[in-house]
Amino acid sequence: RLYHPALTAVRAMSASGPTPPFTTLSISQPATHVTHVELHRPDKRNAMNKAFWREMVECFNQIAEDPECRAVVFSGAGKVFTSGIDLMDMASEILQPEGDDTARMAWHVRRIITKYQETFSVIEKCPKPVVVAVHGACVGAGVDLITACDIRLCSQDSWFSVKEVDIGLAADVGTLQRLPSVIGNRSLVNELALTARKMYSDEAKSCGLVSRVLPDKETVLTAAMEIAGEIAARSPVAVQGTKINLIYARDHSVAESLDYMATWNMSMLQTQDLMKSAQAAMEKKTPKDVVFSKL
Amino acid sequence: RLYHPALTAVRAMSASGPTPPFTTLSISQPATHVTHVELHRPDKRNAMNKAFWREMVECFNQIAEDPECRAVVFSGAGKVFTSGIDLMDMASEILQPEGDDTARMAWHVRRIITKYQETFSVIEKCPKPVVVAVHGACVGAGVDLITACDIRLCSQDSWFSVKEVDIGLAADVGTLQRLPSVIGNRSLVNELALTARKMYSDEAKSCGLVSRVLPDKETVLTAAMEIAGEIAARSPVAVQGTKINLIYARDHSVAESLDYMATWNMSMLQTQDLMKSAQAAMEKKTPKDVVFSKL
Amino acid sequence: RLYHPALTAVRAMSASGPTPPFTTLSISQPATHVTHVELHRPDKRNAMNKAFWREMVECFNQIAEDPECRAVVFSGAGKVFTSGIDLMDMASEILQPEGDDTARMAWHVRRIITKYQETFSVIEKCPKPVVVAVHGACVGAGVDLITACDIRLCSQDSWFSVKEVDIGLAADVGTLQRLPSVIGNRSLVNELALTARKMYSDEAKSCGLVSRVLPDKETVLTAAMEIAGEIAARSPVAVQGTKINLIYARDHSVAESLDYMATWNMSMLQTQDLMKSAQAAMEKKTPKDVVFSKL
Amino acid sequence: RLYHPALTAVRAMSASGPTPPFTTLSISQPATHVTHVELHRPDKRNAMNKAFWREMVECFNQIAEDPECRAVVFSGAGKVFTSGIDLMDMASEILQPEGDDTARMAWHVRRIITKYQETFSVIEKCPKPVVVAVHGACVGAGVDLITACDIRLCSQDSWFSVKEVDIGLAADVGTLQRLPSVIGNRSLVNELALTARKMYSDEAKSCGLVSRVLPDKETVLTAAMEIAGEIAARSPVAVQGTKINLIYARDHSVAESLDYMATWNMSMLQTQDLMKSAQAAMEKKTPKDVVFSKL
Amino acid sequence: RLYHPALTAVRAMSASGPTPPFTTLSISQPATHVTHVELHRPDKRNAMNKAFWREMVECFNQIAEDPECRAVVFSGAGKVFTSGIDLMDMASEILQPEGDDTARMAWHVRRIITKYQETFSVIEKCPKPVVVAVHGACVGAGVDLITACDIRLCSQDSWFSVKEVDIGLAADVGTLQRLPSVIGNRSLVNELALTARKMYSDEAKSCGLVSRVLPDKETVLTAAMEIAGEIAARSPVAVQGTKINLIYARDHSVAESLDYMATWNMSMLQTQDLMKSAQAAMEKKTPKDVVFSKL
Amino acid sequence: RLYHPALTAVRAMSASGPTPPFTTLSISQPATHVTHVELHRPDKRNAMNKAFWREMVECFNQIAEDPECRAVVFSGAGKVFTSGIDLMDMASEILQPEGDDTARMAWHVRRIITKYQETFSVIEKCPKPVVVAVHGACVGAGVDLITACDIRLCSQDSWFSVKEVDIGLAADVGTLQRLPSVIGNRSLVNELALTARKMYSDEAKSCGLVSRVLPDKETVLTAAMEIAGEIAARSPVAVQGTKINLIYARDHSVAESLDYMATWNMSMLQTQDLMKSAQAAMEKKTPKDVVFSKL
Repeated sequence: RLYHPALTAVRAMSASGPTPPFTTLSISQPATHVTHVELHRPDKRNAMNKAFWREMVECFNQIAEDPECRAVVFSGAGKVFTSGIDLMDMASEILQPEGDDTARMAWHVRRIITKYQETFSVIEKCPKPVVVAVHGACVGAGVDLITACDIRLCSQDSWFSVKEVDIGLAADVGTLQRLPSVIGNRSLVNELALTARKMYSDEAKSCGLVSRVLPDKETVLTAAMEIAGEIAARSPVAVQGTKINLIYARDHSVAESLDYMATWNMSMLQTQDLMKSAQAAMEKKTPKDVVFSKL
Repeated sequence: RLYHPALTAVRAMSASGPTPPFTTLSISQPATHVTHVELHRPDKRNAMNKAFWREMVECFNQIAEDPECRAVVFSGAGKVFTSGIDLMDMASEILQPEGDDTARMAWHVRRIITKYQETFSVIEKCPKPVVVAVHGACVGAGVDLITACDIRLCSQDSWFSVKEVDIGLAADVGTLQRLPSVIGNRSLVNELALTARKMYSDEAKSCGLVSRVLPDKETVLTAAMEIAGEIAARSPVAVQGTKINLIYARDHSVAESLDYMATWNMSMLQTQDLMKSAQAAMEKKTPKDVVFSKL
Repeated sequence: RLYHPALTAVRAMSASGPTPPFTTLSISQPATHVTHVELHRPDKRNAMNKAFWREMVECFNQIAEDPECRAVVFSGAGKVFTSGIDLMDMASEILQPEGDDTARMAWHVRRIITKYQETFSVIEKCPKPVVVAVHGACVGAGVDLITACDIRLCSQDSWFSVKEVDIGLAADVGTLQRLPSVIGNRSLVNELALTARKMYSDEAKSCGLVSRVLPDKETVLTAAMEIAGEIAARSPVAVQGTKINLIYARDHSVAESLDYMATWNMSMLQTQDLMKSAQAAMEKKTPKDVVFSKL
Repeated sequence: RLYHPALTAVRAMSASGPTPPFTTLSISQPATHVTHVELHRPDKRNAMNKAFWREMVECFNQIAEDPECRAVVFSGAGKVFTSGIDLMDMASEILQPEGDDTARMAWHVRRIITKYQETFSVIEKCPKPVVVAVHGACVGAGVDLITACDIRLCSQDSWFSVKEVDIGLAADVGTLQRLPSVIGNRSLVNELALTARKMYSDEAKSCGLVSRVLPDKETVLTAAMEIAGEIAARSPVAVQGTKINLIYARDHSVAESLDYMATWNMSMLQTQDLMKSAQAAMEKKTPKDVVFSKL
Repeated sequence: RLYHPALTAVRAMSASGPTPPFTTLSISQPATHVTHVELHRPDKRNAMNKAFWREMVECFNQIAEDPECRAVVFSGAGKVFTSGIDLMDMASEILQPEGDDTARMAWHVRRIITKYQETFSVIEKCPKPVVVAVHGACVGAGVDLITACDIRLCSQDSWFSVKEVDIGLAADVGTLQRLPSVIGNRSLVNELALTARKMYSDEAKSCGLVSRVLPDKETVLTAAMEIAGEIAARSPVAVQGTKINLIYARDHSVAESLDYMATWNMSMLQTQDLMKSAQAAMEKKTPKDVVFSKL
Repeated sequence: RLYHPALTAVRAMSASGPTPPFTTLSISQPATHVTHVELHRPDKRNAMNKAFWREMVECFNQIAEDPECRAVVFSGAGKVFTSGIDLMDMASEILQPEGDDTARMAWHVRRIITKYQETFSVIEKCPKPVVVAVHGACVGAGVDLITACDIRLCSQDSWFSVKEVDIGLAADVGTLQRLPSVIGNRSLVNELALTARKMYSDEAKSCGLVSRVLPDKETVLTAAMEIAGEIAARSPVAVQGTKINLIYARDHSVAESLDYMATWNMSMLQTQDLMKSAQAAMEKKTPKDVVFSKL
């Protein structure tokens, strides 16, 4: 039988507001070792404003350091996952960059883009796996965000759109870089990125953008919580080493990745978790019956 | 509602003959900003002869420089897409290379292969997206060709074969290099490349070689025209930047690709297209209602 | 009609015991130019003990040098493909590494891991294509093994589990490095590696881990033999060059891979096989009618 | 005649104490657009304590953002440049890492190393060129530090030692990674890193570790100021683009680096500085006669 | 005794004018298998105008295909090697790029830079070694040019300057990309590129920019001719394979480069030159006594 | 004062014959933790015959595993270091490769080259540093050999020649791949590889091929022994980690190399050697006074 958080916990998961000092994110601990991060600007369709970009970095840096957290669920409050960038809030920064000539404005623009890219790269740099639960619209920068997560689920009513080409700009905070390794079909990646057409949940499942489709927002959150619970119950040494090596392998040759793995494990195999897990396995117990030290 | 070229235009798309000075390609402008390139040797099942390899380079170099063209449709005239290399025409060059000893013949052979590889690499180097519409047979070098295109569609009666292993040669103008990133299933790639078996349209769809299957040649061409139309209606700054960055990302790590993207956009975000597109979006218009400058 | 080994041959394929000097592998030649390697510890559910790791290296080095062998089928004797590492046999080596301090133990551990990684890397370094036929359980190191094979088939009753995270260790002999390029769906790869959940044959087919599902053990072996027969009938120059270039391409950019291919073929295109194959094609014969020289 | 800061300014350069809020660094502006960072723990031979590692990151992040600063001089207060790590202050963190088992301690250690590596990587990430002026001893982490600087000068009495191997540890904050591309003689790099022997200023000059040797501390600082002044007088668009592209080129192939350069310059060539500089050149003026906008 | 072109030939090497159809280059064959390319705009101090960039590509493409040519000497006519870019002639193209907005102008600028970069990359792509003989000034784009050559000599009166930073632009046709691997002293590279200071022949020799300094223009040309003669006398299979593999190795890891070399030589070792050379060696003859086939 | 092996030991170092089972190598332990490998075919000028290539691999694999050995000295017996390949002994294998057609012969040739490359790559894969002492001639494959060593010394009478181009073959067992990173002067590398000219000890020192020149064979051996002794006296954890990370850094970007270093040290910093070394340093002892555990 699967790990099962009380449904009441799930229902309570959409918080009543952001968690101070954050103004766009609500943070909670719905289960042991699981952290829930909710994008919380429901009246703005969770549009990403200036505060959001800064808070994401702070939030995931904290999670990376928190030994109590072993898995993360990310979702959006309200009717949709996110409508993408909050154009109104951010227009000035992007459309009227500072600087006395084109080169200086370009310099300033590059600095801003690099800062925004960092927002989603922190998800990857955080060694705790991130399960994202999408419902409703996931547009523009929303796609950039979810491609940086580790496991993607969505509800039946979800749809996705690589919207950037429609506002005259090549997607620049991660979609073009990560989507091709997420979807195993480059023809489709190209079509989505070049035409900005909507993709619905069924196609998202069949092309591999998400690994499961659930009926609605509540069930997709429950499923995400279950997966996060499964992960949190396992040895954090094994889990976080797995995430780090999977990301390393994406960007290196197999020979380099094997060498990195061997170097990584020369200490990591000396963990007590190995002995504890092996013992549990022989006694027909599951990892959930084992208590692992903090990491 | 989608962009819709007059059906008559589509019907007229299969030209009566090659466009001088080309002898194997027919070039036309079926819609604004869309160029149609048709492989036109129908009585030879569009087999690729010596002239073809040279003309492809010339043709796509012209398209790359033509500011009127923003998207390309590629198809084959007659009953099939292509039967691959024209062995008769090319036999002498490949089978009886010049040179006084093995090393000198090898040197000559390498020069020829490099030249042929360039034929399909020009498709990738051309910043305008290329939508390919396949019908009937797509054999040998035909697979090399379509893997270098950006978006692949085919008709119900299409079939594909990585034929090279059957004529005693490892495929060498791009299939082994590009197919694995096109199809998300390496076991299948290996099977196709090692046994030369036929793959039909349904499997081509499910494995990601094509992103859509249409009933017949006419509808697949119409669909390709529609997608090309969608692309051509969008900001060429955004579209061509997207293609260039997608190809860069395939061959580099995510960190390198993000850095390249930021550097690219430090000037590209200063385009008027961004303002025009944003304004259109706020006025509930689509990109098609916007007039973008030439690029 | 496909190549068809006598069913009796297939039935005979599960040998009565290992082939000396091997103690865990049974080697046979069920058809011309085809070698069958069977993992043979059926009473231990084909668990991988210390002898196995050493014998795999020796076995595949021999196959790599054997000019009579042009394709390999790999399978498991008895009820299941493999239950993975034989924890009992290997525990001491991994769990109680030699060394006076943490660094020295770490050094020793790295040497062991590197040796085990080599066990499966020999499959990739062997230029003859390897078709693997899975039935029943394929757990832990079994997944590492099959991701290093070229073509993967399984029976209806097969299931797969990236088990390592359950025994407190990040998978380290190839799964994390090779699985992501085998399966075109990173969200699924992450889920499998992080939760250790079972994946059944249907999902294995749809995600690309295997390219075909057959009814039972006998039919999956027959199908593997057919594919191996198809491959063995073709020019070994073409086939083995194809395998080497496919693996090179996985780990390099397209431009580098094209350059390598051209360099490779400057001698390989000078083979007589090309002429023989071309002639056969013109006479409407198949590769099977051609006799190719040894390689 | 070279740019010449008043000698009095140079004499005043060794400050009376750190600049609050820093406790280990003294920051000043000895000339227009030039920032002087002085490592200031003279009574501790400028040993690097915990505060230092943190302050370096903060200091260089500020410099990176400061539009008034166009070049940096780095030096050490007192009798020597630096004696390296302050073992007393840092021993607990490195020698007694937190964690319940070897794997957890290893995890913690890796986090610390990564943090320390970042200390010197900020010098490279800062786009303003850094000229380092060494005098007396430059030991251990001091070598890591100077290899991350752009231009290296030293006084006659300087000596260098890659000390880490003597305290039982492979150098890990940058020396092994950067020294080989700094010194054009790998045999010598290996000898220095493996035997920890002293290298004096003459050998440092002949092997390329420093590009100039000056008589004493005062003259080496004057020379560093002059070079920094030369750099600060030039177009910041050109100078900082040069640094960024030089570092990019070290870690990429020539083809990749050329492509990056072209992308970089598509906006940077549109600077007014180009016209201003060209005009000055035609009027036989030098860059120092031109006023460039802030960057 | 060294190969010795008649001094009269050397004296005659500075031609009376460009070789049609070229307007900036003079081409001659001063010795068997040696081609001399002279930059010939002496009254403009060999400044590089628009015609030059185009003609270099054409010239070196011809040389690459010419089986009679086995080595190239490159020099400049008149008083100096080159003063770099002809600002007057090229100003319009660079300073006033076409395009309706910044992004479009940027696009156009990138195309121009890429074209100029190609001018010097052809030297590297040409498999015949290029020996460059510098005398007098070698400024700006002149440094880009010589870093793309294989062997660099200069006369006593030569001086070099990476001038670009003085005209407000980061060097963009190859200096920043190639100079660091040419000079074994990154501190010096940075100083040269950031301050644009002059470097004289002695320093150029000691830092490795040139491998020999000769008294004057005549002797440097003679020495270049001798080296070219030495090279031209050897097996073209060996020589050109050496150049190609040296350039490959610069941009790849040692393991990749060894693999490429093995693949290269699987045909190249089958040359008759090997037997001819070995025989000559045993008969105490030199390569000059052997007649090699054309390549 | 430096570590000093008794001169008698050095004199005894040139053994009376190979150490069985080796026929071309003599192995001894002249000092604690130091292994001396001598190439021992003095009557054949230490030419490398078939046995040599095989024995090198065996010898260095043994050394890699031997916990008593911490540093290696490599030298040649008799009058010269080595005259390179023994053409007579190896001619048949290289000049008359097996195989029915060009492709099959090519295949065989590649296998041989790969085997020979491995001969010198084992030196690099062995984690113990190798100090090579050259005297007299070091020709052809001798240069391939020494570039794979870590520290290079030579006697005054030494000379070097990249001879391969003279026998019609591009150097293929490591020179073209490793020499450019050894010598900081690509113009010189190209000249040596393309003209096969002799380089004497003075130039070898100034260009960085060797790091020291000693008067004669005896003193160069003594110096090599001293350096090996210095290395052997230090923590083997630190020394061997340094070698492995230096080689990793040569083939990867700085960012990748820093990451690898941090991963490496997460276990290696937990060594007792660190504490022992730190304590010794505080008590003003040297590493030689410390007893380190075996590795």
